[in-house]
Amino acid sequence: MSPLPRMNWDRPHLLGLEELSREEIVAILDLAEHFTQDSRERKKKRANLAGKVVVNLFFEPSTRTRMSFSLAARRLGADVLDFSPSGSSTSKGETFIDTAKNIEAMGIDLVIVRHSATGAPHLLAHHLNAGVVNAGDGAHEHPTQGLLDIFTIRQLRKRVEGLTVGLVGDIMHSRVARSNIHGLIKLGARVIVCGPPTLMPDGIEELGVEVSHKLDDVLPRCDVINMLRIQFERQRSGLFPSIAEYARLFGMDSARLQKAKPDLLLLAPGPINRGVEITPEVADGKHSAILQQVTNGLAVRMAVLYLLCGQPGG
Amino acid sequence: MSPLPRMNWDRPHLLGLEELSREEIVAILDLAEHFTQDSRERKKKRANLAGKVVVNLFFEPSTRTRMSFSLAARRLGADVLDFSPSGSSTSKGETFIDTAKNIEAMGIDLVIVRHSATGAPHLLAHHLNAGVVNAGDGAHEHPTQGLLDIFTIRQLRKRVEGLTVGLVGDIMHSRVARSNIHGLIKLGARVIVCGPPTLMPDGIEELGVEVSHKLDDVLPRCDVINMLRIQFERQRSGLFPSIAEYARLFGMDSARLQKAKPDLLLLAPGPINRGVEITPEVADGKHSAILQQVTNGLAVRMAVLYLLCGQPGG
Amino acid sequence: MSPLPRMNWDRPHLLGLEELSREEIVAILDLAEHFTQDSRERKKKRANLAGKVVVNLFFEPSTRTRMSFSLAARRLGADVLDFSPSGSSTSKGETFIDTAKNIEAMGIDLVIVRHSATGAPHLLAHHLNAGVVNAGDGAHEHPTQGLLDIFTIRQLRKRVEGLTVGLVGDIMHSRVARSNIHGLIKLGARVIVCGPPTLMPDGIEELGVEVSHKLDDVLPRCDVINMLRIQFERQRSGLFPSIAEYARLFGMDSARLQKAKPDLLLLAPGPINRGVEITPEVADGKHSAILQQVTNGLAVRMAVLYLLCGQPGG
Repeated sequence: MSPLPRMNWDRPHLLGLEELSREEIVAILDLAEHFTQDSRERKKKRANLAGKVVVNLFFEPSTRTRMSFSLAARRLGADVLDFSPSGSSTSKGETFIDTAKNIEAMGIDLVIVRHSATGAPHLLAHHLNAGVVNAGDGAHEHPTQGLLDIFTIRQLRKRVEGLTVGLVGDIMHSRVARSNIHGLIKLGARVIVCGPPTLMPDGIEELGVEVSHKLDDVLPRCDVINMLRIQFERQRSGLFPSIAEYARLFGMDSARLQKAKPDLLLLAPGPINRGVEITPEVADGKHSAILQQVTNGLAVRMAVLYLLCGQPGG
Repeated sequence: MSPLPRMNWDRPHLLGLEELSREEIVAILDLAEHFTQDSRERKKKRANLAGKVVVNLFFEPSTRTRMSFSLAARRLGADVLDFSPSGSSTSKGETFIDTAKNIEAMGIDLVIVRHSATGAPHLLAHHLNAGVVNAGDGAHEHPTQGLLDIFTIRQLRKRVEGLTVGLVGDIMHSRVARSNIHGLIKLGARVIVCGPPTLMPDGIEELGVEVSHKLDDVLPRCDVINMLRIQFERQRSGLFPSIAEYARLFGMDSARLQKAKPDLLLLAPGPINRGVEITPEVADGKHSAILQQVTNGLAVRMAVLYLLCGQPGG
Repeated sequence: MSPLPRMNWDRPHLLGLEELSREEIVAILDLAEHFTQDSRERKKKRANLAGKVVVNLFFEPSTRTRMSFSLAARRLGADVLDFSPSGSSTSKGETFIDTAKNIEAMGIDLVIVRHSATGAPHLLAHHLNAGVVNAGDGAHEHPTQGLLDIFTIRQLRKRVEGLTVGLVGDIMHSRVARSNIHGLIKLGARVIVCGPPTLMPDGIEELGVEVSHKLDDVLPRCDVINMLRIQFERQRSGLFPSIAEYARLFGMDSARLQKAKPDLLLLAPGPINRGVEITPEVADGKHSAILQQVTNGLAVRMAVLYLLCGQPGG
């Protein structure tokens, strides 16, 4: 395992892709490529974060994101602690910032935060000396998910520039959509957002995307389709008529795939609702890169953690 | 600490004792003996699983089994992650298999699974490339518990062959009973299952065991008695008249012990209900090996983890 | 990082400050000073507890104490396991002692225990061979909190002897108060306990403290004020008229601070209820050492863990 290169990187936090430059995004993707090599070779753990302490501060449920960050941190030699809001001092009336400052005072180096409130990670970044990584804030951003989606596109299509990427589903409530839009546009992709009018935020065109309400219209032009999750637990009632109708209009099945380019790349941030956004045979089919995304997520998060607080040697 | 021998072992999974050969069971027990030495000497951790990642995927509550696997994995140098179904993507509607495949895609090497459904570990083993260890599936098998029971018998009686072992209690709902039966019979023990007729599954004789409904009849013939736990949380109502009557007929107390062989070995998989299956003075008395079983559980699980994915050096 | 000195220390457990001698308390504080140096230098982890296993056995909710112990143990090279009573064998009817003995049988070296029952750690210490650290038992003691409070006083005032320390609030239900009283008096401080008569235990004077019911009377004489938390979750109703009145009589705000010595040191064990015991501007002001306490807690706990089971080399 060769020592990692020292990259040009100044930011102490990763709060969203909106604020990153094209160069910064490419730096993360290039470094992540290094790390995918690592895991393929099953080598020993790196020590770039030896002595560092990373805390998962998750105020919303998560399996894969929390585990992915934990594994990424451990692979780099960091110690990882999980903070769970139940059974904790937040149930004793402590404020969000006090909880975080108390955790920081124990000598934490990085806080991975997920919160239902937009801007919660930015608030922490303002109040803490520790680095902050946004692992999802409300319907705002989920930058490492955006990065791993883009990484997967670049890995499997060898480029991002010039590709047409469709983001399909509940655009309004999706932090994954927002991070994808910012990142993809900076890397030169064309982005089409496609979903029911009731789930499309006003003024989304201003981000530089094309808006559509008919998947069948845009599917033939897309090189990549990213099927957003219907967040049943987040959905306000009345925004679409029924699950069945949603699946018929915006779900991906074998019949609809016929209209797509033969090498269409199909992404989904997961967890997926089989039979709603995507049928089982498509989820497990040749276009799908769903599990590849999960594997890549580890490498992307290693890259982010390394850039925020790693040592080049080791 | 001498390097461990390379054992003959081909299986990628440990799903039950039913499918193991006598030789495979003996291989695990022999290796576990090695590891009991380790813990007695309080030596440094081994590195046989360095760089490996083990996930505890427990869909049923557990203290000792989960901790025992965690400690066993760490003693061998592995990283361990706990997955808890609450606060996770299963609450977002993801399927069991999708959850597991997503965890595997993060580069997991071994999944330790406990599930209320019989066959859940076998389903995972079919779908995953990672190794799978059954930590209890429904009323089917709990192979590492069976192995540690048998290990304790062999350790304290110097043999298993030719011994008569009584399994007492709720045979019908006990995965511990089933794993013990398969393992003990393969190693040449005689097995008597003893419990109320309502808690005795039809056709259990076909496994090669003797069936009894009266503990007082069989106790004098037994070299070992394994007192199964009354699983109040699993029990369907109406299967026995009352706790008090159960304790009177099938519980072990000092008076009943008088009828046993003087060197009777008393096991209980725990957690025990003091005063129900076993009185406090018997649980803490000279016949009892209850805590020894827990200590041995660590060594047996180290052996299993090592055989499934360890490196002989280190 | 120089090897740590071998201190004179015989105790296998830390159950309370009441039973410690002045010399033992000073030994812990001196060693903790060593460790604050460590964390300032961000050096690699020590190996004094390499191969040791520490279990957090918390039967009451905790964020900072549990995390602080976990981090302290890991910094010394120990493995740490969290035991949570929900999802565990205690929900299956196992006794507290059986749970602990089973955990110990897995080869645990130290148990960190928090329990709502006074004396629970002492009970464990009686039954286990492993070391036991009291992380809070009922309204009895919370020795590491007392130690970190005293450490912070000594660090910032350069001495403890001869200082006047006010403990303010719910004295009756506060284990933090009791540990502070025992430790401070042994080190030669004067202690004034101050709170509503309904929250003042009978006979508290016998511990050698002065009792007051008016903060404004005692504030001018104090070098240090420790603002105890109002434990809403513990409070029996009817013990004080209203939160607002409590805050007016016993809360600390900028106006009241005018009556204090100019270099008053303000402590609070946290989590704090902003606007109740202490206003935000005071909590974040120049007198406050609240976050310093948290940082020091790590060093104090490292010292305790080291004394109970560490090796001097490494």
